[in-house]
Amino acid sequence: MKITKFGGSSLANAKQIKKVFDIVKADPDRKAVVVSAPGKRFATDTKITDNLITLAEQVRDGKNTAKILTIIKERYMNIINDLDLGQIVKAKLETNLQKMVTDSYTSYDHLLNTFKASGEDNNAQLVAAYFQQNGLAAKYISPEKAGLYVSTQDGHTRVLPETYTNLEKLRQIQECIIFPGFFGVSKEKQRVTFSRGGSDITGAILARGLKADLYENFTDVDAIFAANPQIVAQPQKIDHLTYQEMRELSYAGFSVLHHEALRPAIMANIPIRVKNTNRPELPGTLISRTRTDNKYHITGIASSHGFMSISIKKYLMNEEVGFGAKALNIMAEHQLSVEHVPTGIDEISLILRADQFKDKEEEESVLQELKERLAADDISSEKELALLMIVGEGMISTVGTAAKAMTAMANTGVNLKMIDQGSSEISMLFGIAAADEQHAIKALYNTFFKV
Amino acid sequence: MKITKFGGSSLANAKQIKKVFDIVKADPDRKAVVVSAPGKRFATDTKITDNLITLAEQVRDGKNTAKILTIIKERYMNIINDLDLGQIVKAKLETNLQKMVTDSYTSYDHLLNTFKASGEDNNAQLVAAYFQQNGLAAKYISPEKAGLYVSTQDGHTRVLPETYTNLEKLRQIQECIIFPGFFGVSKEKQRVTFSRGGSDITGAILARGLKADLYENFTDVDAIFAANPQIVAQPQKIDHLTYQEMRELSYAGFSVLHHEALRPAIMANIPIRVKNTNRPELPGTLISRTRTDNKYHITGIASSHGFMSISIKKYLMNEEVGFGAKALNIMAEHQLSVEHVPTGIDEISLILRADQFKDKEEEESVLQELKERLAADDISSEKELALLMIVGEGMISTVGTAAKAMTAMANTGVNLKMIDQGSSEISMLFGIAAADEQHAIKALYNTFFKV
Repeated sequence: MKITKFGGSSLANAKQIKKVFDIVKADPDRKAVVVSAPGKRFATDTKITDNLITLAEQVRDGKNTAKILTIIKERYMNIINDLDLGQIVKAKLETNLQKMVTDSYTSYDHLLNTFKASGEDNNAQLVAAYFQQNGLAAKYISPEKAGLYVSTQDGHTRVLPETYTNLEKLRQIQECIIFPGFFGVSKEKQRVTFSRGGSDITGAILARGLKADLYENFTDVDAIFAANPQIVAQPQKIDHLTYQEMRELSYAGFSVLHHEALRPAIMANIPIRVKNTNRPELPGTLISRTRTDNKYHITGIASSHGFMSISIKKYLMNEEVGFGAKALNIMAEHQLSVEHVPTGIDEISLILRADQFKDKEEEESVLQELKERLAADDISSEKELALLMIVGEGMISTVGTAAKAMTAMANTGVNLKMIDQGSSEISMLFGIAAADEQHAIKALYNTFFKV
Repeated sequence: MKITKFGGSSLANAKQIKKVFDIVKADPDRKAVVVSAPGKRFATDTKITDNLITLAEQVRDGKNTAKILTIIKERYMNIINDLDLGQIVKAKLETNLQKMVTDSYTSYDHLLNTFKASGEDNNAQLVAAYFQQNGLAAKYISPEKAGLYVSTQDGHTRVLPETYTNLEKLRQIQECIIFPGFFGVSKEKQRVTFSRGGSDITGAILARGLKADLYENFTDVDAIFAANPQIVAQPQKIDHLTYQEMRELSYAGFSVLHHEALRPAIMANIPIRVKNTNRPELPGTLISRTRTDNKYHITGIASSHGFMSISIKKYLMNEEVGFGAKALNIMAEHQLSVEHVPTGIDEISLILRADQFKDKEEEESVLQELKERLAADDISSEKELALLMIVGEGMISTVGTAAKAMTAMANTGVNLKMIDQGSSEISMLFGIAAADEQHAIKALYNTFFKV
C-alpha cells in the first residue's frame, strides 16, 4: 500500500489534476492521496497559499479584501470549470470561503493558520469530487476527522503520538482517501499548519499511520539531483540515497523534500520515492534506510548562505572549564540558534544564521554582552558566509575524500574559512565566503561527479 | 636589559653551573637570572623536584624520611663540593632543609608547595654564592622579598597584578639578581608553586616586571624544532616564530617553553629567545609579536594524544535552540573541560582529554546523564584519539594548505576523524587515531618541510 503526495505545481490547474488522476488510477495500491494547494502555473504566478496569507493580513489590517478574495476564488473556479465539476462543487467552495472570512478567531495566529490551511483543504475536496466524477471511488477526509493532532512548541508544529493510532483506522476505508496536506488540528480543535512545504510532512505522517509500504512524493523534477541545477548544468540524478544523506542534504539547501518529512518515514522505516508528476514513467529517486553502492564517491553537494560567524578570543580559554557552555548559554538566552562551534586553542567561533538578528544594533549588543560576560580579550564577527556540504554514506572511512574536496576548492581559489568534520560520519561541512559559493559547488561537482 | 632563565638540566651539576656563570658573565645586560632546581644529570636520573615530592608524601604518610632526605642533601652537597663553595654555604643549606622538615604547615598542600619550592630556592642561593665567589656581583632575591604575589583559582596559580609594581623596584639593585623560579607567595605569606616547569613563568613575570628588552630562556636544545625530534629525525630548527604560533604549538605538545610563560611576555611585548646552555653560540629560536616570512609554508607541526570523543545524536538537534549549551553545561557541572565541539546536523561531538574521567564507571554515568538530560537518540564514545595541529601565521589566507595537509595524510592511509578549522587563523586541527600519530606527523613534515 502506498501513500501518494502531490505538490502544488502538480495540482496547479485542471491539466495537472488530470495527470494526478491518471497516476492514482494506474496503481490500485495508491490508497491515500495527499493534496497540496494549487501552486504556480508558470514562473511568475502566485501560489494560492501566498494569496491566502495576503488575505489574512488584509483582514487583520482592516483593508478591503474584495480583490484578493476574487483572485483566490477565480483560481478554484477555473479549475472547477476546466474539470467540468459543476454546481455542487462550486457552491461548496463558495460556502467554505464565505465561512472562512466571516468566522471569528481567537487570535490572528488562529485566523492565519485557518486561512493558510484552506488552500489545501479546498483543493482536496475538489480533487475528491473530480476522482468520483471519473469513476474512481474517492473520499475526502479532513485532519479533524482523521484525528491528525498537532501541538506547537517554540514556533514548531509537531505531530502528537496519538495521531498514529487514529490514522491506522483509515485503513478500513474502502475508497481512495483524498487528504489535505500542510495542517493538523490542535487539542483545542484549531487548525495549525506545519512550516511551509508541510504537505510533505502530512504525507509522511499518513504513510506511518496507515503503515504504508511506500511513500510516493510527486513533484515537478525528474529526481533529486547531486547538485543544485541552478548552479551546475544538468547534474547527475541520484537513483537512491539513505534517509540520513537526505537529511544532511536538505539541511544544507536541498529543498525537494521537506526535511521534517523524513522523521515519520524513518521511524516506520518506510521508503520514500520522489517522482515527477509530468513524467511518471521515470524511476525518480528512492530514499531508504540503506542503499547499494553508487558509482560516485559521494552522493550530493549542497550549499546554503546567509550565515555569519562570531569569533571570541581569550587567552588560556581552553583551560577554563565551561567557557564554551557560557558562550552558548548567552546565545540561547537571546534565542539565537548556533549551528556550528569551531574551536581553536584560545578562540571559539559561533556560526549562526545571520537573519536571527533583527538589526545591527541587536547584533552589536549581543557581541558586547558576550565580550563582557566572558571577559573576552577580543570579539569580532564576519558576515556573508555560505556553508557547503558534501554528503555520502561511508565517506569518512574513505581516506582522501577531504583532501580531494579541498584540493578542488583550492585550485579554484576558494578560501576555506571553516572546516567542520568529525561529528557526522557521512558529511563534511565547509564555511566559505558567500561570493565563492557557485565556484566551490562547480569545482566539487567536477571533481566528484565528472569521472 | 635581559632576564635570563636556566632550566633544570642547565643547573644539574657543578659543570653546568659553571657554563651558566660563563654565559651570564659574558653579557652585562643579563640583569637577573632565574634559576630552576637541579634537573637530570643523565637520562635515568631523578629531578630534585620529584625527590622533594616523595619527601612530602612520606612526611604526610608518617614514613621514615631519612633516606630521601639524604638523597636530596647529597645532590646539593655534591654541587657545593664540586664548586668549592665551602662551609658557610653548606651550613645554610643544612639549616634550610632542617627548617623545612620541622616547620609546621597549615595543610598538606601548604607543606607540599613549600617543599617543592625549596628545590629552586636552595639552588638560587647556591648559584648566587658561586657567582659572588667568582667575582660576579650577584644577589639572591626571594619571591617574598621581591613581592611576587600569586593566588590560586580552580587549581591554577596566577600572578597578582601588584607583583609587577613590586618587581619594578628590583631595577635599582646593582648586583646581578639570582631569583628562584617556579613559585610565588600568597597574600597569607605561604609559598605557592606554579604548574610543573613553572620557572619559565617566573622568568616571564620578571621580564615584564623589570621591563626587560629580552627574555632569554636557556634549556638543553639548540632551538625549537618544527616537529617532535623523537618522531622526525633531525627536524628543521625554527629561527623565528610569533607568540601566537608558540601558543598553539605548545597547546598541542611543544613543551620547550611553558605555555603560561607567554602571557607576561605578550602583555609587555618582550621577545623571548630560547637558547642552549651547552651551545650558547647558537642563535636559538626567537619568539616575538611579528616575524618576517620564513621559507616554509607553515611553522610547525605538533601533536598530543590521550583524547576521546563523545558523540551525541538527536534528530532535528539543529533546530533546538541551546542544545549545545545544554550539553556543555552538563560537562561543566562535572568539571570536565571540553576542548573541541565539532558539530554535524543532528550530531554534536565533544572532544576532551580522556584522563579527566577517573574510571570507566564515571565515564558511563556521564554518558548516561547526557543521554537522558538531552533526550538524545544515541550517544557513543571513542577513545585513543590524538590531536594533530599544523601552525603558521597567515596559513588560512593561503589557499590550499588544508588540501595539501590532507592529501599528505590520505596518501599515508591516515583516516581523519575530525577536522576543526575556522576559529584560529593560524592553525588547523585534525583528530586522528592515536595509532596513526607518528605516520601523520611524518607525512606532514615531509610535505611541508622537505621542499
